[in-house]
Amino acid sequence: MAKAGMDVTEVTTPCLLLDIDKVKENANSMIERCRKLGVKLRPHMKTHKCLEIGEFSTGGTKACIAVATLTEAEFFARGGFDDILCTALFTADKINRMKTLSEKLKLFHVMVDSSYAISLLKTPPSTDTRWSVYLKVDCGNNRGGVRWDDTAEALSLAKAMLDSSCSISFQGLYCHDGNSYACRGASEIKTVGGTSAERLLLLADKLRSGGVCVPTVGLGSTPTSSHPTESMQKLTELHPGNYIFYDVAQSVIGSCNIDAIAVKVATRVIGHYPHRNQLLVDAGFAAMSHDGRGVLPNHSTCVVQDHPELSLVNMNQEVGFIEAVNGTMNYTDLPLGSLLFLLPYHVSHVSCKPCIM
Amino acid sequence: MAKAGMDVTEVTTPCLLLDIDKVKENANSMIERCRKLGVKLRPHMKTHKCLEIGEFSTGGTKACIAVATLTEAEFFARGGFDDILCTALFTADKINRMKTLSEKLKLFHVMVDSSYAISLLKTPPSTDTRWSVYLKVDCGNNRGGVRWDDTAEALSLAKAMLDSSCSISFQGLYCHDGNSYACRGASEIKTVGGTSAERLLLLADKLRSGGVCVPTVGLGSTPTSSHPTESMQKLTELHPGNYIFYDVAQSVIGSCNIDAIAVKVATRVIGHYPHRNQLLVDAGFAAMSHDGRGVLPNHSTCVVQDHPELSLVNMNQEVGFIEAVNGTMNYTDLPLGSLLFLLPYHVSHVSCKPCIM
Repeated sequence: MAKAGMDVTEVTTPCLLLDIDKVKENANSMIERCRKLGVKLRPHMKTHKCLEIGEFSTGGTKACIAVATLTEAEFFARGGFDDILCTALFTADKINRMKTLSEKLKLFHVMVDSSYAISLLKTPPSTDTRWSVYLKVDCGNNRGGVRWDDTAEALSLAKAMLDSSCSISFQGLYCHDGNSYACRGASEIKTVGGTSAERLLLLADKLRSGGVCVPTVGLGSTPTSSHPTESMQKLTELHPGNYIFYDVAQSVIGSCNIDAIAVKVATRVIGHYPHRNQLLVDAGFAAMSHDGRGVLPNHSTCVVQDHPELSLVNMNQEVGFIEAVNGTMNYTDLPLGSLLFLLPYHVSHVSCKPCIM
Repeated sequence: MAKAGMDVTEVTTPCLLLDIDKVKENANSMIERCRKLGVKLRPHMKTHKCLEIGEFSTGGTKACIAVATLTEAEFFARGGFDDILCTALFTADKINRMKTLSEKLKLFHVMVDSSYAISLLKTPPSTDTRWSVYLKVDCGNNRGGVRWDDTAEALSLAKAMLDSSCSISFQGLYCHDGNSYACRGASEIKTVGGTSAERLLLLADKLRSGGVCVPTVGLGSTPTSSHPTESMQKLTELHPGNYIFYDVAQSVIGSCNIDAIAVKVATRVIGHYPHRNQLLVDAGFAAMSHDGRGVLPNHSTCVVQDHPELSLVNMNQEVGFIEAVNGTMNYTDLPLGSLLFLLPYHVSHVSCKPCIM
């Protein structure tokens, strides 16, 4: 990792650049938004996988976070974090690692949406602990989770957890409303966020009517957490992740202004090819990821900062192909060796080495 | 990394599985093919980035390899490899690392296609060494390189290297004929390989006629190296990389039979969703890569081993979405927790942790 404060022209490319002031601003805005909403923030770590940024996003408490994998959970546990929710659905091969985390942490939560998963938790992690378990709910995202309107199934699973002979402590409901990624603009985002929250709260009420205590009702995605609705005040927690950096996709969705994007990839021009009106840069899909390939209006996979006339039209593993959107490439202004800064479409899979500026 | 010889049902998923016998068979077949052809093999390490596999692919010599980045060059140099060609076009920020490699190794080669890059090499790496430099040539691939038919430019660059006051030792020509990836079947592959070799050899002859010594004429891609033509006998080296594992893309191109694929991703079923005829597995694009998303005839991004009725239709970061190609999913045969093995479309960007079986 390059050092904070070094001259950006000195970085070896490709290099992920973080604007640490923007990271802190994004972190603090979400903390403040949740405070006003009266809902606990459980920031997701999957986007950055970084202890320092985890500390910013928890306001320094290093507690109450979500992670996507057990490997991430183990990493943050070693880094001194606690109250960790692992959002992955698990299988039998994961139980021993889950036990170790349950013993090590004050609070470690896992997620289920099937009786199979509950059956794997019939033995408590240790003699004096219980599994802390969320029920994953699908409020329209069509990924994992029990459907929000399948009360019978949700009630059956919740009751199976209550009847678990004290091996399980049922924590409540979790929903990732990732269908918000199809929205364009704050109004559509609020419709998805509001609808998801209402569906989740309705299911929570039905479980309560069925005799189940539901302490937590948590929802999360960056778009809906960036534009919360009034009905979301009745939730108990939010768990967005991408907002810490934001990216071009989030600006297209309407979660943020493009100025809020805290991350970019520095790359250098390595070749001029006027016979096909292209130049090559040293960032390919190994650095930038394929996610969102060609989806922007100019068929670009990213925004080339300060160069609206340029489009990243293709990538190989280590090389990006840049074209002029209209007319002929101005090679004079982009000599070999010159730096360009690419704002990534989807930041969660950008994987070149970071440099905090 | 999981241990060689462990029971495959014990792996924690997602997990990259290598069939080490197939890896060795692919390595030895290419060594034998090049021996018969009378052409030196310079295997590319970018696909596996692994010292042990580098050793197999060099027949144990740990010499004469190609790498895609300086980071890979440094890794293999630390691992005891020598005669390393870095195929990336470079900029000024890379010179110090290139100097260190030139001093450390007996043979370290770099690649240029512009007078800008040559100008960066006007000082030798040290008082008693010279830069060993290949000229990158484009024989129809439309990526980096001087065009094969631009004799004037190639001659001008080669002469600039000869006139470099002894800072540069010109090694010859290099071409990656990656346009072979558009081929379907051995006949089309041989046309691309033959044409590329003839173009490259023609340019070499023209340089020689212009007074330039061209020791090396090297060509490489997995498809054309898997089906070499007679004209390729006149080349001096081949540098394929992907062949060490092969993948579904290579079987579609016609480079290999699907049985030659030495790598697969083990994943487990984590959710049943009969209302949308889907199941979820714990391998998403973080494990499998987006490359080749949905390109197979059944709109799958991979081959699900032993399950021609299944298609990987979508991926999130950590989750894969599998559908039945025709009719209804047979969930009884695919219970939660059961293992599936995915043959990746493009293996070079598969990034989950490996397990050698």
